[in-house]
Amino acid sequence: MHRTALIVVVGNEILTGKVEDTNSPFLARELYALGVQVRSIVTIADEVETIGRILRELAPCHDVVITTGGVGPTHDDVTLAGVARAFGVPVERHPEMERILREFYGAGLAPPLLRMADLPRGMELVDQAELRIPCVRMGNVWVFPGEPTIFRRKWLAVRERFRSEPFALAKIWTLKDEGELAPILEETLALHPKVTIGSYPVYPGHDYAVMLTIESDDRAAVKDAQLEILRRLPPTSVVRTE
Amino acid sequence: MHRTALIVVVGNEILTGKVEDTNSPFLARELYALGVQVRSIVTIADEVETIGRILRELAPCHDVVITTGGVGPTHDDVTLAGVARAFGVPVERHPEMERILREFYGAGLAPPLLRMADLPRGMELVDQAELRIPCVRMGNVWVFPGEPTIFRRKWLAVRERFRSEPFALAKIWTLKDEGELAPILEETLALHPKVTIGSYPVYPGHDYAVMLTIESDDRAAVKDAQLEILRRLPPTSVVRTE
Repeated sequence: MHRTALIVVVGNEILTGKVEDTNSPFLARELYALGVQVRSIVTIADEVETIGRILRELAPCHDVVITTGGVGPTHDDVTLAGVARAFGVPVERHPEMERILREFYGAGLAPPLLRMADLPRGMELVDQAELRIPCVRMGNVWVFPGEPTIFRRKWLAVRERFRSEPFALAKIWTLKDEGELAPILEETLALHPKVTIGSYPVYPGHDYAVMLTIESDDRAAVKDAQLEILRRLPPTSVVRTE
Repeated sequence: MHRTALIVVVGNEILTGKVEDTNSPFLARELYALGVQVRSIVTIADEVETIGRILRELAPCHDVVITTGGVGPTHDDVTLAGVARAFGVPVERHPEMERILREFYGAGLAPPLLRMADLPRGMELVDQAELRIPCVRMGNVWVFPGEPTIFRRKWLAVRERFRSEPFALAKIWTLKDEGELAPILEETLALHPKVTIGSYPVYPGHDYAVMLTIESDDRAAVKDAQLEILRRLPPTSVVRTE
């Protein structure tokens, strides 16, 4: 079984289109490569109540929840308060995190930066040699900052902890359109019920018309279904396979 | 009051990172420009039950819901079935949509393409002179295809229907970091409680350290709050304003 994941993106700036969310597409690719099934991506506002409600409702239905955004020293950074709300615990100064922040910032430590040491009670610091400030998690909820460079650095330090079974995936790029492909895909699915087939048309201007994806936990079934589709397509309509 | 919106992105290809969702960032910018408040963006799998549940639960809490993806002739295009599930109606052949599809495709009409005329009972075709195939909506739920070119063409044809009151927005790009800005922002919010202030730090490599956004329905309050912040910042730390 694959682990399941929920990605929660916190930020008014995403909802208002001021900043483009590059973290969730990156994370979707990463989790897929690790064999983790992302069930949903939810983008919500910087509101303690909303963050708390979403996490309280959805965290129990997923193996892992990853939040990005809303972490920092200003008034609009409320993700940690939302986590505390979800778990019904207070936010309090975490002495070890305070020590780490004091060491990291040294003389440049403006008092508001210490707010980043105010964590939900019971939150765990997840240390990695390559990180000067550790990751934090509360149960299955991992809280990451939204700034893409820091987000990636922290994620890459801990990504191997999330590895699950690999997905088997094959692709076919074809010149046939979806109207012609539909019956072929249905016949293939009837013969190979263990696979999932995705069909992704693109607008003219590419060297193919539709990309097909064939997926399953069963590598042999994926290969068989791919061959089944290829048998039904005129070879001149197949641009490439993978 | 601003209209509120929910964006629902349907597609396994987004959740698995195979295809990057460019529609929701575009739509977020568009809706903000139209004065519509996007409350949430939810990305979910190509599953009738999931789509139905999300729409049933969330459509009543928003003025408008816009879905992208999962529309087309193949087996994995199930958004319309999900809408039918949400509204508790059957899917049936829509004679006018059938006529339009036959005219559009002409002799090239493969039978599966006609499935795009199978719509939830009661779905309304929203015609625009510039569209050869109309938009569709069911109550406050507008269903758009996921392919970005077609999505944009359809959206741009109907976008003016969604216009609400404009948002007032000002920005400040500054060299100060969030630790220094935090008390300034809090003092400004205490003086100008009608505004919302966002603080968006970037990683070194930009010509600024933090972008501040000041928003409200009240244009004068936005201007006042922006001036208040500028009064408290050394002029040499302000890169630009807008």
